[in-house]
Amino acid sequence: MRFVVDKDILQDNISKVIFSAASTKVSSILECVLIEAEDSIIFTTNDMKMQMQTEFKAEILQRGAALVKAKLFSDIVKKLPDGDVEVIREENEVKIRSQKIEFRLPTLDPLDFPKMEKKPSESFCEFVASEFEDAIDKVIFATSKDETRPTFTGVLFEREEDEFVNLVGMDGHRLAICKIKPVEVDGNFSKIVPADNLDDITKIIDIEEAEKVRVSFYENQATFEIGSTTVIVTLISGKFFDYKSAIPTEYSTKISISADVLESTLERASIVSKDEKTNIQAVIFETNGMMFTVRSMSADGRFEEDVLCSVEGKDIRIGFNVKYFLDVLKVLDGEINLFITSQTSPSIVQKPDDENYIYLVLPIKMPE
Amino acid sequence: MRFVVDKDILQDNISKVIFSAASTKVSSILECVLIEAEDSIIFTTNDMKMQMQTEFKAEILQRGAALVKAKLFSDIVKKLPDGDVEVIREENEVKIRSQKIEFRLPTLDPLDFPKMEKKPSESFCEFVASEFEDAIDKVIFATSKDETRPTFTGVLFEREEDEFVNLVGMDGHRLAICKIKPVEVDGNFSKIVPADNLDDITKIIDIEEAEKVRVSFYENQATFEIGSTTVIVTLISGKFFDYKSAIPTEYSTKISISADVLESTLERASIVSKDEKTNIQAVIFETNGMMFTVRSMSADGRFEEDVLCSVEGKDIRIGFNVKYFLDVLKVLDGEINLFITSQTSPSIVQKPDDENYIYLVLPIKMPE
Repeated sequence: MRFVVDKDILQDNISKVIFSAASTKVSSILECVLIEAEDSIIFTTNDMKMQMQTEFKAEILQRGAALVKAKLFSDIVKKLPDGDVEVIREENEVKIRSQKIEFRLPTLDPLDFPKMEKKPSESFCEFVASEFEDAIDKVIFATSKDETRPTFTGVLFEREEDEFVNLVGMDGHRLAICKIKPVEVDGNFSKIVPADNLDDITKIIDIEEAEKVRVSFYENQATFEIGSTTVIVTLISGKFFDYKSAIPTEYSTKISISADVLESTLERASIVSKDEKTNIQAVIFETNGMMFTVRSMSADGRFEEDVLCSVEGKDIRIGFNVKYFLDVLKVLDGEINLFITSQTSPSIVQKPDDENYIYLVLPIKMPE
Repeated sequence: MRFVVDKDILQDNISKVIFSAASTKVSSILECVLIEAEDSIIFTTNDMKMQMQTEFKAEILQRGAALVKAKLFSDIVKKLPDGDVEVIREENEVKIRSQKIEFRLPTLDPLDFPKMEKKPSESFCEFVASEFEDAIDKVIFATSKDETRPTFTGVLFEREEDEFVNLVGMDGHRLAICKIKPVEVDGNFSKIVPADNLDDITKIIDIEEAEKVRVSFYENQATFEIGSTTVIVTLISGKFFDYKSAIPTEYSTKISISADVLESTLERASIVSKDEKTNIQAVIFETNGMMFTVRSMSADGRFEEDVLCSVEGKDIRIGFNVKYFLDVLKVLDGEINLFITSQTSPSIVQKPDDENYIYLVLPIKMPE
């Protein structure tokens, strides 16, 4: 194997696949990038949860393959000067040359690399990349890191005979639903994609500057095609929570407020809201006629602010974990509506001009 | 105590003293800022290693003092909207008010706060702030974090009957000396200032945008006056290493090279230089006539680069810890000279146009 390619192209491509190279304490084949030189160059990484593959053109002087540590290869390429880079496999070494610089890395046997097979698709959906990224941003933060409840660690991709695909993230305390209109869609599906992998996929969208993202499903596998990068992900098995039944259909109090104003107020409230024992950061929302007051307190001190907004409906006093509000306020701007039902049922955050996004959050037992 | 002041002024001043507020697990008076309202407002913090004090004007409605957690107070001020802030002490609470926002913090007894006394000076020196900051940057990185050898954890300030003050940092493997010309100076001194405190002091210089820094010494105490901020530091006792005798007076090889070129080469070399067992990152410098080659190797792979520079003197082969070179190359730019004597005595890094800065680094036993 021997090829020559511009440093920027090399750096760009190794950056794309680095996310599915495992970083392990013991030396492992899953830390490696498979470099294949045939009609073009293909980089493949696979940490057994996700496989990433990217393809690019180079001046190929000799065909072949090599298997080197991905992180090391990426670090080297980043630190090379601009211009041509030559990559040569000789026996058990890979030479990386640029100007008067030469690196030699040991290579493992490329045949040992566990390449995943790209399956045919049973169903698929294709999105405008920027809309897809925005939808992921709006639901991914509501997923859980708790591996003991696996379905909460993924985002549900669901279509049921309508023109939208629903993306849903939840962790048991809150629920985010984003309905997104695909450019193209075929077949019905209800699949849970690991949130960690989606996080890496949004990074690829940025690097590729791709216009579209195509998602194909086949049994327990999803394939994401983004420009010249392909990502294969193993889906989470299990039944997702019946999220539609959780959405309240009525409310008792409606608060209309600027997302920025509420965010500033809650950031202030969170300074003195932390309960050292339970680690919960509680805030109290209280309405009194047209007046909306936010309060918090802890051993550190007390906070109170009257907030300018419009209030409709009956007076309420309700407690929330401030984190769950701050998370959603980071992804929303402009005017938002807050619909409150009772001290025990979920409240809704929604923009008045966007029916396709809804965020549900459960109240907490109020501090006295 | 009751005063009103603009939010930016309040934020600026609490930012200056926050560095000497201790952050402890258990609640402690050393975490607090002492707020005194007399003819002006004075903020004081003291973690028993360093005391910081800053003074500013405010509309004082009632004199008095309060003692609140500094970090909490700083967090609150940062998150307030622009405009006037009112601070009121009432019994055991301090109210912080701005618009429709009110925080209440518990206050401790101001009389309990351990205020250090500002001593008269036995000797002093005053520097142009930017020159002082530059000199600190050039020596502080060479100090040690190892508390078992206390004198290595500080920077020596030394004057002996000449027009310069020498600032010296060393850790046993390397030594940085910066001779700096004071604007004003009186008396002889040889005092060791803790490097940690100097680091905070350079932050104050940036916040104050002060033109001058005045350093006064009295027994085991140094006072730094920077604009409206005063910092009192407890000096490190003990005898500093006789650094002047360590400077080699001759050399066998001289390498003249661009600091940027050598830095890029050594960053590349460091990718494959780490010995997993010893944790040392060794590089080899080799000259052969006019040729200068840098090599490194480890289980990860091998590196070699021929570097463009000018070489004089006899051929050498010598090993260094790459970290000790990268540190000094971060603070130098343009052309540098590297003077090498032998495989066992220190080498010198110096700029051809700056006699007042000299960096010494000991070689390491070479990897085979």
